[in-house]
Amino acid sequence: MMLVREHDIEALAIGAAILGAGGGGDPLIGQLMAQEAIREHGPVQLLPLEALNNHAFVLPVAMMGAPTVFLEKIPSGEEAMLAVRRMEQHLGRRADAVCPIECGGMNSMIPFVVAARLGLPVVDGDGMGRAFPELQMETFHVYGISGTPACIADEWGNVVLFETVNNFRLEAFARACTVKMGGYSHLVDYPMSGADMKRAAVPGTVSLGMALGRAVRVAQERHQDPVRAVLEATAGTAYGRGVELFRGKVVDVTRRTRDGFAFGKAVLEGLGDCRGSQLSIDFQNESLIAVRDGQVVATVPDIIAMLDPETGLPVTNERLRYGQRVAVVGIPTPPIMRTPEALKVWGPRTFGYDVDFQPLEELHVN
Amino acid sequence: MMLVREHDIEALAIGAAILGAGGGGDPLIGQLMAQEAIREHGPVQLLPLEALNNHAFVLPVAMMGAPTVFLEKIPSGEEAMLAVRRMEQHLGRRADAVCPIECGGMNSMIPFVVAARLGLPVVDGDGMGRAFPELQMETFHVYGISGTPACIADEWGNVVLFETVNNFRLEAFARACTVKMGGYSHLVDYPMSGADMKRAAVPGTVSLGMALGRAVRVAQERHQDPVRAVLEATAGTAYGRGVELFRGKVVDVTRRTRDGFAFGKAVLEGLGDCRGSQLSIDFQNESLIAVRDGQVVATVPDIIAMLDPETGLPVTNERLRYGQRVAVVGIPTPPIMRTPEALKVWGPRTFGYDVDFQPLEELHVN
Repeated sequence: MMLVREHDIEALAIGAAILGAGGGGDPLIGQLMAQEAIREHGPVQLLPLEALNNHAFVLPVAMMGAPTVFLEKIPSGEEAMLAVRRMEQHLGRRADAVCPIECGGMNSMIPFVVAARLGLPVVDGDGMGRAFPELQMETFHVYGISGTPACIADEWGNVVLFETVNNFRLEAFARACTVKMGGYSHLVDYPMSGADMKRAAVPGTVSLGMALGRAVRVAQERHQDPVRAVLEATAGTAYGRGVELFRGKVVDVTRRTRDGFAFGKAVLEGLGDCRGSQLSIDFQNESLIAVRDGQVVATVPDIIAMLDPETGLPVTNERLRYGQRVAVVGIPTPPIMRTPEALKVWGPRTFGYDVDFQPLEELHVN
Repeated sequence: MMLVREHDIEALAIGAAILGAGGGGDPLIGQLMAQEAIREHGPVQLLPLEALNNHAFVLPVAMMGAPTVFLEKIPSGEEAMLAVRRMEQHLGRRADAVCPIECGGMNSMIPFVVAARLGLPVVDGDGMGRAFPELQMETFHVYGISGTPACIADEWGNVVLFETVNNFRLEAFARACTVKMGGYSHLVDYPMSGADMKRAAVPGTVSLGMALGRAVRVAQERHQDPVRAVLEATAGTAYGRGVELFRGKVVDVTRRTRDGFAFGKAVLEGLGDCRGSQLSIDFQNESLIAVRDGQVVATVPDIIAMLDPETGLPVTNERLRYGQRVAVVGIPTPPIMRTPEALKVWGPRTFGYDVDFQPLEELHVN
């Protein structure tokens, strides 16, 4: 039985922020919330997907909203509990386990906040395999699970329950209420059986997040190249081996919060081997597409992550600032995230880009 | 036992549109829906407030949204049933009666659509005594009843349930979802006991609406002045005797739909005794304030209604057009709507006007 302790949470915060593709919310805040909960209530069991009982009742828990808002308004952890309790009451059943909807940044942490307090395991898998900006952008949705009944709660104790005819309406209504809740809310959606979760989740994402974080820490301690350590840690996993896409410094970054999202673009000027080259990255909370000198070098759903080249620590889009030096890495996503039905939900065309998805490993055959 | 039949619905549609103060949604659409329901299921019992059992379970039902949208998208009536059924299920109790949240325009009709189908009585009283644009603008709110649990439904079968810590949050969340539902939704809020309704409702508003409508029809048949007939029908009721504020023609009308509301202003140029004078009326769905030559002549919560001088039929703000001739009447509202706590919720300052409420009968002592 794998137990997740305070130091594992720190590793996961780093790794999940890498998988978060620049979005997913500030991992530090989530880390502090999860560590506090584990300190108070003890370590949390991490349950491999295959160990999950088919009849188990699993509740995915998350925060919803613009990551830029989390920076100003730190949640207490009580709100997430309220959403879970309300959903259990609504469905007349206690949860057997919780899981992340996305294993990126903040939202890799929230299940641990709830699990520690409730004495429940966290399932080692999620519905995005990274972070994405919208609620229907989940493998749970792609593979036919209803997002509702779903529930959001805010810090004042307001609760809204949704029963929608499709998951796009859930996204629309929950987003509208989340904006009115001050920019973020605590969400429970896609309540499902263990059997459904085994079928529809991206497996092993929590342990991969922890492995990436540990690789960074080990490289730091041994004074090795932490960017290379991250790439090596992805090799041999369900994800493909990561590649370094670019090294440069930020020469322009635009960002605005609209409709509950942080939209923006970062432009980097090349350094070292990349001198003379330019890379631009568009994001909607998460990085969506990277273009080098007019050439697409990576797109959703593959992961585009920016790392501090000195420390290997991920740089989220909301923290990005002029003059910052970054290494941009791409990580290929597992097959379950790249099926035709999955690409219809989160391929580059969904976000308005006139390009087809090309697997990262095909774009970068060295 | 008073039974409401098809022709009573026609009278109520006219009278409630007068009480609707220019808003409340197009009464014709509601009328057709209610008449259809009564034709199919038989007449509906109108229950006087005092005949309501203290332990009865009453559900106020209404449509929410911008009246301008109702003109383009006629509801089927099924949506209102869905909201009621869902609320009954949520609270584990069947409704004993329904009532209007506002006795103005469209929303005086919806309870009859539901009541006919469910075989329930409609209580003769409401939460506004007129129409108002927001959900906390109800005597139910003013006198301490919780607006939640509340429920909205749309024509596609989507349902959202609200449990908020105050009624302002209900308004904010339900409004946001209603906008996403295409501009209107079907609402059940302020579920309450008979005892609460007796204490907090504006009494007799449904029968007053029908009386006003009948007065208009009788005056038309007898070729009498229908505007005067409306004013006389208000005398001796819980409302004060109405006064004619102005006669003129519309020389300017601006209107825009924003955040789920129809905002606007109408300017009238005087005719007859009013020649040389100008009257302007501001509205947010409903008419809020009437100013004649720089002088306030009526404000919320008193009712400002425009009537066609030839027919006595009310002219709603969404139907108002350039060149139209109208008689503007003011109707004083009952004491329960004018208490200090009520004026805090819907006095002119709530809508951003720097004037205190002055009772219509004090502004017009002839």
